[in-house]
Amino acid sequence: MPSEARALLADSQGESIVNTSLTVGIVGATGAVGQELVRLLHERNFPMASLRLFASARSAGKTVERFGKKYVIEEAKPGVFADVDVAFFAAGGSVTKALAGDAIKAGCLVIDKSSVHRMDADVPLVIPEINPQGLRNHRGIIANPNCSTAVTLMGLWPLHQRFGLKRYFAATYQSVSGTGAEAVQELENQTQAYVKGQPITHKVYPYQIAQNCIPQVDSFGENGYTGEEHKMMLESRKIMGLPNLKVSTTCVRVPVVRAHSIAVNAEFEKPVSVEEARKAIAAFEGAVLVDDTANRKYPTPLDFAEKVKCGVGRLRVDTALDNGLSFWVSGDNLWKGAALNAVQNAEFMAREGLLKPKRALASV
Amino acid sequence: MPSEARALLADSQGESIVNTSLTVGIVGATGAVGQELVRLLHERNFPMASLRLFASARSAGKTVERFGKKYVIEEAKPGVFADVDVAFFAAGGSVTKALAGDAIKAGCLVIDKSSVHRMDADVPLVIPEINPQGLRNHRGIIANPNCSTAVTLMGLWPLHQRFGLKRYFAATYQSVSGTGAEAVQELENQTQAYVKGQPITHKVYPYQIAQNCIPQVDSFGENGYTGEEHKMMLESRKIMGLPNLKVSTTCVRVPVVRAHSIAVNAEFEKPVSVEEARKAIAAFEGAVLVDDTANRKYPTPLDFAEKVKCGVGRLRVDTALDNGLSFWVSGDNLWKGAALNAVQNAEFMAREGLLKPKRALASV
Repeated sequence: MPSEARALLADSQGESIVNTSLTVGIVGATGAVGQELVRLLHERNFPMASLRLFASARSAGKTVERFGKKYVIEEAKPGVFADVDVAFFAAGGSVTKALAGDAIKAGCLVIDKSSVHRMDADVPLVIPEINPQGLRNHRGIIANPNCSTAVTLMGLWPLHQRFGLKRYFAATYQSVSGTGAEAVQELENQTQAYVKGQPITHKVYPYQIAQNCIPQVDSFGENGYTGEEHKMMLESRKIMGLPNLKVSTTCVRVPVVRAHSIAVNAEFEKPVSVEEARKAIAAFEGAVLVDDTANRKYPTPLDFAEKVKCGVGRLRVDTALDNGLSFWVSGDNLWKGAALNAVQNAEFMAREGLLKPKRALASV
Repeated sequence: MPSEARALLADSQGESIVNTSLTVGIVGATGAVGQELVRLLHERNFPMASLRLFASARSAGKTVERFGKKYVIEEAKPGVFADVDVAFFAAGGSVTKALAGDAIKAGCLVIDKSSVHRMDADVPLVIPEINPQGLRNHRGIIANPNCSTAVTLMGLWPLHQRFGLKRYFAATYQSVSGTGAEAVQELENQTQAYVKGQPITHKVYPYQIAQNCIPQVDSFGENGYTGEEHKMMLESRKIMGLPNLKVSTTCVRVPVVRAHSIAVNAEFEKPVSVEEARKAIAAFEGAVLVDDTANRKYPTPLDFAEKVKCGVGRLRVDTALDNGLSFWVSGDNLWKGAALNAVQNAEFMAREGLLKPKRALASV
């Protein structure tokens, strides 16, 4: 590999840091989630000695500038993970299937955004505020949850801890960035065309998304639920350790650029109180309580785009459930729903000594 | 009253029609729902001899042209209903409070869009496909349901008839036209400003609605539910005759111009089947079944704006309820949710001989 293809950080501070710092790779670095990973690793000062950006052959060789540093995009292919300590996979299921095994064999920890291994019994599916124990016991790959699941659980988990979750119903309001950069462009194009009085076309979604709602996220299964809806059920069970949890969701795409919102009706084992629920949310590190209806304060997706914590509000005793609470949560699908959660998993592991540079290990 | 202020229809066809035709008034004729009333009464050939348009003093005296006819807007005030047979009130609760009593005393049937009398024990709240019996027994006023309730019930009612409804959960995706013409303009202004790179301001809604979702429709009650959410519970019970029905909803404004959508999880007394549910929806006159997931066919608000029937799709056996069905419904909030339902109530009464011109009555 040519040395110029290795995007060494200009601020690498010599041997002492290099010895305890990591070579980080991002697979799918040019996509919507990949770009957020680059940003978050920099902004959160992830302990990395170097960052390497991988993408398809089409993008390979291009030079990109990020945070004042130049990177040459490398082709994601077998063999590239030999010197990489941790690789964030953000390129979709087919790329994970093709390359994650190679990375694991090379001793590179894979933190995967795709859904392909999430439900594998031997792959931890981790939100670090909920089930970090999975980060201590893995076979070289950590799965990250679906975006809607991650945001929903930022409200549900603290309430479950307090009251014992039995069942939940949810309807999602999902932004187009969850589909990817081409969907963000499609909404933008449709909005521009609308204002200019030009014909509105669509390609990414089966229907116009500007000024519309599309009650389909992912493809349909035999039982009439979509893949996204099915994932919310299965992943909620696995992450919270509730294998018998009853879940029914409707996943809907709305003309919002960034941040998903979810309306939730949740049933609990124990009697509920709104005051106790608010305390539980406020004390949870993954959420911020925004719940002051007298002053019309509640989360909206615009307010929770590019926020680390998810916003929970509209807490109330549910009128159709015994021991039920309803709430609304908004959170950044590209951050807590994808890139941020992946980085938080890696941060937890680095902090706890669960993720070490190969060179450091070799020199021991 | 000056004769030119009486907007006589140019196509009035002589004595035989006049004797069996009605003088119709619209109170709030310049608003979003009022304009739809004018349109629907014309397009559906409502048996009217003349149409009179009432609005606030501010609009009175203005001449408007609708469907090739000129109308002089009259001020809505006591005394104007003496010669009116049926008045559609579409101007909000305060106008109904101020003037409906006067109209009733004058022998003018009031068909009211506002919420002020909906839950009065002696006022029928009618969707004619569901509970037309209320149109036969009233004290001069018929209430029309809330827009979200009306659209939701176009899916729920046929399923209730078949399986026996026990409880439902719903999350709404409500268009800005439900707030009124000024909210439609606000979304338009924000969209224009966004494309032109200008600052986005808001006045009608507490937050920007373009590219956002606002989980508040109507004001908040003490239990944390909004007025809209409370109405959905109470009005569902009254219209379907199910006083103990359990209902929990979350009402959300989305950046859609026209047509509301609702994601529903419903629990029934009897065992359910998707096939039977589809048959029940397809056979119901208020709904059209759009449910072919293999071909990505389901209702969207864009497809159900300016449609008489509401679209029901995404029917599936609910994964979190015993005897449960989930579905998605889209319907025009200005039509079935407001003006159309009011006109349909009047049409039913005219057809059944329940609504007669005062002049015809006087001459008997």
